[in-house]
Amino acid sequence: MVTGSKEKALALLRQDAEKILKLISVQMENLTMPQCPLYEEVLDTQMFGLSREIDFATRLGLIEESVGKQILSELEQRLAELHDAYERENNRSQVDNR
Amino acid sequence: MVTGSKEKALALLRQDAEKILKLISVQMENLTMPQCPLYEEVLDTQMFGLSREIDFATRLGLIEESVGKQILSELEQRLAELHDAYERENNRSQVDNR
Repeated sequence: MVTGSKEKALALLRQDAEKILKLISVQMENLTMPQCPLYEEVLDTQMFGLSREIDFATRLGLIEESVGKQILSELEQRLAELHDAYERENNRSQVDNR
Repeated sequence: MVTGSKEKALALLRQDAEKILKLISVQMENLTMPQCPLYEEVLDTQMFGLSREIDFATRLGLIEESVGKQILSELEQRLAELHDAYERENNRSQVDNR
């Protein structure tokens, strides 16, 4: 396996993780609440898609299993932070509106 | 890109398509009717997962876009045939039971 294709695989997976984060971020700002079932569904679908890409890259020997797990857990961590920030913002506006 | 990894990518994708066909086949025989929403959901999820793998392999230059489309359309064709066979079998048993 050429090193270049391993690097490209990793770069693509990281890009895809970023895309999910942006999609969810835009969704939180503009469309739906995190409590909305549609939000959960979009997130689940996107995470499933990324996990399938990571699994495929792992089986091809393009990335280490541990690296794949790290990409997913990093994304989950950042999504949780985004979610917390949204909740805080949301609680503050509710207080302001009283 | 080494030829071996292209061949491996293609083999993995074909294997995954076979797995979906088998899963759906087992589901039809044992669990739920094709009209069941759960059946549709499992199928949609599996097809989405495979299409993400194919998309990833295409972006990596491991397979041609046309080959990826062919894998998906072949699988869809075979699923449709499986579905038709199930429907025929089902209609026949209904007639026999009268």
